[in-house]
Amino acid sequence: MADEPPSILPDPLTKELRDRLCGVVGDAWVIVDADRLLAYESDGLTAYRRTPRAVVLPKSTDEVSHVLSILSQEGIPVVPRGAGTGLSGGALADGDAVVVGTARMTSMLSLDPDNRLARVQPGMINANLTKAAEPFGLYYAPDPSSQSACTLGGNVAENSGGPHCLKYGVTTRYVTGLTVVTYDGEIVELGGFGRERGGYDLLGVFVGSEGCFGIATEIEVRLLPKPEGVRTLLAIFDRLEDAGTAVTEIMAEGLLPAALEIIDGPTIRAVEASVFAAGYPTDAEAALVVEFDGIEAGLAGDVERAVAQCSRAGAREVRTADSAEERLALWSGRKKAFGAMGQIANDLMVQDGTVPRSKLTEVLGRISEIGARYDLTIANVFHAGDGNLHPNLLFDRSNEDEVARVNRASKEIMAVCVEAGGTITGEHGVGLDKRRYMSLVHGPDELDAMRRIKWVFDPLGRMNPGKVLPDGPDDGKEAP
Amino acid sequence: MADEPPSILPDPLTKELRDRLCGVVGDAWVIVDADRLLAYESDGLTAYRRTPRAVVLPKSTDEVSHVLSILSQEGIPVVPRGAGTGLSGGALADGDAVVVGTARMTSMLSLDPDNRLARVQPGMINANLTKAAEPFGLYYAPDPSSQSACTLGGNVAENSGGPHCLKYGVTTRYVTGLTVVTYDGEIVELGGFGRERGGYDLLGVFVGSEGCFGIATEIEVRLLPKPEGVRTLLAIFDRLEDAGTAVTEIMAEGLLPAALEIIDGPTIRAVEASVFAAGYPTDAEAALVVEFDGIEAGLAGDVERAVAQCSRAGAREVRTADSAEERLALWSGRKKAFGAMGQIANDLMVQDGTVPRSKLTEVLGRISEIGARYDLTIANVFHAGDGNLHPNLLFDRSNEDEVARVNRASKEIMAVCVEAGGTITGEHGVGLDKRRYMSLVHGPDELDAMRRIKWVFDPLGRMNPGKVLPDGPDDGKEAP
Repeated sequence: MADEPPSILPDPLTKELRDRLCGVVGDAWVIVDADRLLAYESDGLTAYRRTPRAVVLPKSTDEVSHVLSILSQEGIPVVPRGAGTGLSGGALADGDAVVVGTARMTSMLSLDPDNRLARVQPGMINANLTKAAEPFGLYYAPDPSSQSACTLGGNVAENSGGPHCLKYGVTTRYVTGLTVVTYDGEIVELGGFGRERGGYDLLGVFVGSEGCFGIATEIEVRLLPKPEGVRTLLAIFDRLEDAGTAVTEIMAEGLLPAALEIIDGPTIRAVEASVFAAGYPTDAEAALVVEFDGIEAGLAGDVERAVAQCSRAGAREVRTADSAEERLALWSGRKKAFGAMGQIANDLMVQDGTVPRSKLTEVLGRISEIGARYDLTIANVFHAGDGNLHPNLLFDRSNEDEVARVNRASKEIMAVCVEAGGTITGEHGVGLDKRRYMSLVHGPDELDAMRRIKWVFDPLGRMNPGKVLPDGPDDGKEAP
Repeated sequence: MADEPPSILPDPLTKELRDRLCGVVGDAWVIVDADRLLAYESDGLTAYRRTPRAVVLPKSTDEVSHVLSILSQEGIPVVPRGAGTGLSGGALADGDAVVVGTARMTSMLSLDPDNRLARVQPGMINANLTKAAEPFGLYYAPDPSSQSACTLGGNVAENSGGPHCLKYGVTTRYVTGLTVVTYDGEIVELGGFGRERGGYDLLGVFVGSEGCFGIATEIEVRLLPKPEGVRTLLAIFDRLEDAGTAVTEIMAEGLLPAALEIIDGPTIRAVEASVFAAGYPTDAEAALVVEFDGIEAGLAGDVERAVAQCSRAGAREVRTADSAEERLALWSGRKKAFGAMGQIANDLMVQDGTVPRSKLTEVLGRISEIGARYDLTIANVFHAGDGNLHPNLLFDRSNEDEVARVNRASKEIMAVCVEAGGTITGEHGVGLDKRRYMSLVHGPDELDAMRRIKWVFDPLGRMNPGKVLPDGPDDGKEAP
């Protein structure tokens, strides 16, 4: 993006260093060829591109520990990486850094249905954990939209959410233990068997630390019993504000939906113009997906009350789903929204801000005004129940002027969220992209405390340097 | 207790210092008289007694900040204190330290029903928050047994749980923002309006830091809609193991009760012999309280399935409650257990360990064996669904030999919990009492990381010194 520093050209590893790394993980798993490194030059936020010096793919905690020992002896910075589906540039490495990826660490280590706990390697795909737990009537609750691709290690790093975190909460609520390798190769156990082990919450502060504290090589999580029943409804509105009103009224009723998602008009039209067409009316200005889960007997009443609130708020049509197939159909517009936008625009800048639920309508109006002013298409898909907005700015990276306008509009959108009492990220993390906004929400004392917390885990400042904390003299530097 | 150091005699404040403190909070709120200091010499774990140098009771964030500035200029250690209902000696001050209490900071600062958020002063009593939220159909979920006396500030310090945290989780899930004053009097804002603000989770690591990082002077919490209905049942068992089996089977059914509590035979007999008699049969060896809440229509089915599991596990009697009065009656034996034990024993050492739910029966057997071996009465009241045990060791502090046996038995109980894959505290915190067990569950690297995390907030080591971290050369000392 416009604020990007000039790209640093990768500095090849010496033969001796390469041999040592190959000795740990095997020749096939040390990647140094320029064409193979291309796959690692960006993450889900494709506006940023960086080429790492090399990529190493270990298989176990011990291998990660050996790899980090070798790299730290040489003083080489390390960037951890899961599936690369992140949306803040958090897994990108400058040319002086080596990416340590978890792609080969996909095993289930243990599944304990009696205590509803699973222990997995960090490269396991989110959806595969639920698949493995299903025979026991259990599932893993946090469900990022990328759940069929993203890894649990990445989820831990970003403290990921998802549509159902309105009712079920984000990743940190489910992580009960971690095995962590720090930059110098040391293996540390945090928590285990029900989180709270006494003492300060090291586990809690590691979750969401965006790969800046170390690499989680084993992850223990809490599983939940599958809800007995699920009901989904889709309400179509002619005005976005009315969908916002429906959300407020559903919550005011004392209902607690599992998910409350809004797709705005531009997104509906993008979806319907794509191969993912979901049968949403293209002249509508908002579609609201409401889902309830829980005990079968209670669901009909919940759906009835929510339908009534949607109608009262002005919905022109409400569809309900009872079967799993019908549910998937109602969800498809929401789930495929990002893919659809990728088809109609060359590039996409996904923003991620939160606002108090009561300010949703006001803030959406201001975002739409910003889009008009900068002559940009902004499509909104968002977790309305949580007040977590995802404005998507469509653009073409070859158009320099458009890139500049996207940058300025993004900055204004963040400022609007903060002004409304919200913040700069709901679930995508800070990474590379949001560092410049950190001082909008954190004072210098707080940023300084964050810097010192990083030093507790990474005193040399070489684990995922240049992420999260804003530019400053100490950025990516050693503890004093 | 046997491991206690000799008591340090309080060193009176100079007149000049006293005048400066009185100038901030008013003469009435600086306590230095020996007889008035007596009220602060212990907390809910009465086995420990220490007399503070003085007690200061500020009224606002600004007053706390001024008081701490003055004390830190003099290098005087500070111990924060809420209602003093804690069960780990965490709010006790040696004679060189001044207690800063929150007893006058009881105000509701804001209540925002639309966003289901409340902002309160730390001295507000837990139950009063729910009372204030009730007119809006909302409540505050974490409910320690002491909820009619304990404060939200204390709950934040200890990351408190309660019977309903099986379904609803502990304090950290509900805290979305804090205003914090650090030892040098600095005021720092952490989070606010929905926790995740981007960057490392300073808010999360502050919750549960047991008053060692600073004083929370404003607390923002999430409220929940009151469940539509509640059903409670009480099952009576002739064997404690059978109650344990019922717990396992209820969870294996995929049910998620709001609470699953066991009261053992000795506790039942203590309750029935006290003024709190609840009508539990005194020849029983366990009473299991099961509670479900949620949508009215689903509750009957849940209760039916739980009753069936209790009967199958060998319950000789199952009572159910539909009305609020009947519910209170079923709960009374559980809620009054601690009070009742206080009536039959001079002193009480409440332990607090957790074990994987599947190990409950085995561990209870070993605890009973430890009690027999040391000739001690051990009564168990516990959050069975969470595997959180509360063995209560009854004793008389004037009997030196008995005190020594209580100490040895406590240590063995902790070791048994850890050996079973559990830990040394579920919800009472480490405080003074559990420091000696910290190395059972944390390696030296982890303890060192905790020490360094404390330094981030309290580099001089003067905020609640001598708590949480085990004795060591750095204990309560300055960051290097």
